[in-house]
Amino acid sequence: MDFTGLSAFPLTPLVDERLDEAAYVRLIEKLRVAGVDSIGALGSTGCYPYFSRNERAAALRLATEHSGAVPVIAGIGALRTRDVLWLAEDAQKAGVSAVLLAPVSYHALTEDEVFGLYAAVTRELSVPLCVYDNPRATHFTFSDALLARIAQLPNVGSIKIPPIAALERIAALRAHIPAHITLGISGDAIAVDGLSVGCGIWYSVLGGLFPQAALAISRAAQAGDMAQARAHSDALAPLWDLFNRYGGSLRVIATAAELLGVVTAPCLPPPLQTLQGDARREVAGVIERLRLAAG
Amino acid sequence: MDFTGLSAFPLTPLVDERLDEAAYVRLIEKLRVAGVDSIGALGSTGCYPYFSRNERAAALRLATEHSGAVPVIAGIGALRTRDVLWLAEDAQKAGVSAVLLAPVSYHALTEDEVFGLYAAVTRELSVPLCVYDNPRATHFTFSDALLARIAQLPNVGSIKIPPIAALERIAALRAHIPAHITLGISGDAIAVDGLSVGCGIWYSVLGGLFPQAALAISRAAQAGDMAQARAHSDALAPLWDLFNRYGGSLRVIATAAELLGVVTAPCLPPPLQTLQGDARREVAGVIERLRLAAG
Repeated sequence: MDFTGLSAFPLTPLVDERLDEAAYVRLIEKLRVAGVDSIGALGSTGCYPYFSRNERAAALRLATEHSGAVPVIAGIGALRTRDVLWLAEDAQKAGVSAVLLAPVSYHALTEDEVFGLYAAVTRELSVPLCVYDNPRATHFTFSDALLARIAQLPNVGSIKIPPIAALERIAALRAHIPAHITLGISGDAIAVDGLSVGCGIWYSVLGGLFPQAALAISRAAQAGDMAQARAHSDALAPLWDLFNRYGGSLRVIATAAELLGVVTAPCLPPPLQTLQGDARREVAGVIERLRLAAG
Repeated sequence: MDFTGLSAFPLTPLVDERLDEAAYVRLIEKLRVAGVDSIGALGSTGCYPYFSRNERAAALRLATEHSGAVPVIAGIGALRTRDVLWLAEDAQKAGVSAVLLAPVSYHALTEDEVFGLYAAVTRELSVPLCVYDNPRATHFTFSDALLARIAQLPNVGSIKIPPIAALERIAALRAHIPAHITLGISGDAIAVDGLSVGCGIWYSVLGGLFPQAALAISRAAQAGDMAQARAHSDALAPLWDLFNRYGGSLRVIATAAELLGVVTAPCLPPPLQTLQGDARREVAGVIERLRLAAG
């Protein structure tokens, strides 16, 4: 697969602590019908590290069975290299088109340890890998030099860049990274900025629940109409504001999915909780005001 | 059990990616023979989140089988409440005397989520729990108000306090926490400071590999001879300096264990690595200079 366009990251909804298969299939099918360019199954929004190996394999099988021609990118991150290798194997058996790997940590990792992880995993892959740089969740910060070193490994296809200081970084990184590897922006609120300065793909939480809204931005940017892309993004400012005020996109999007009835409340794995009370009412108000509809 | 004295936290050594049962049993037996007051099995030094549920249960069974009358405190942390509950059950079946729970995170947790985790777990326990405050690894910072709230839950027996700003904090915390709950210091380099200002227990990495050296400090402090305790601790300054320069105690202690031949190199779960090259030679030099001997 090529890592371009809109990659949509759906939730992995639970019901009574188990994967809500029916709801998950509906989320995947809506992404297929909407025509996203890829599906990021078991990304951070999909809470990949909260699930067991068996649960992850089951979710990926459902994703690939219901995604039609849309390629699935599977999150394979785990604390231990051995487990990442097992998850990579499971994901490939489930028929995914690519894998997404973040250097998940408990004990803070060194650069050599992270390089060792990517070297061990890319060596075993027969699908391309996206390097997932998400310091907020992994607490590991990639240097540009380390990314350049990892980019020399086989099977590396893309780098998912965090929103922190992304814009200054993208131009600098682009100079160090081979042209066949796309840079991808994450952090929906600044996606247009990333797409304006050379990101070839948007790894999107918005797109996982509201693919039309994300596609409007993505297709305008792909057509070179950045003013239109920015207008679509600016219209969603109240949603970006919620992401900002409630600790990121996850709880806001999961709450929105519950409010829209596309998943059963509570849909997140405890101890994670969706928003309640005033915060929940705010999410409901923004959905209504922006006329956001799932899928 | 009462949470007092020296609680020693051993490594959980691997050989070829599997628990090195013989080496682990030797570590546990040395702690029993040395006469530590409790053994913190599968603590952070024991890399608890890197092991599967089955591996953790197997390690705990070995720990309780070989610890004699020394109580075992088992780390039961995991990202998901469901898994923590399973691990608590497994630990109790393995015969541990207490459990140790940190609010492990991937998505940053809110105070309500962390309280919900401790409420769910303490409700099910028939052994006491130690609240494990380790912001470097969990990236969650407990407020004193939250600790006071958790201290009201059933079965809470101790709070393991991180070295960051520990001294100012301990007196403030002590005022909010019921007297039956001990405060415990972690961060070996400042253990004496913690023991001087009201900590009743030292959760010690040093004690997990070098119990005699830790007991010398602990017993002097328990006898009220803080000058002697501090002299013992100050003599270990070169070791504290290594902890400080190599990202914490884990890699230094694991490297020391390899150098002393009590575990097989590499003993840590990849991607974690013990120290190599100059850093390894420094560890060897400090062990020799301080005449440190395992167990």
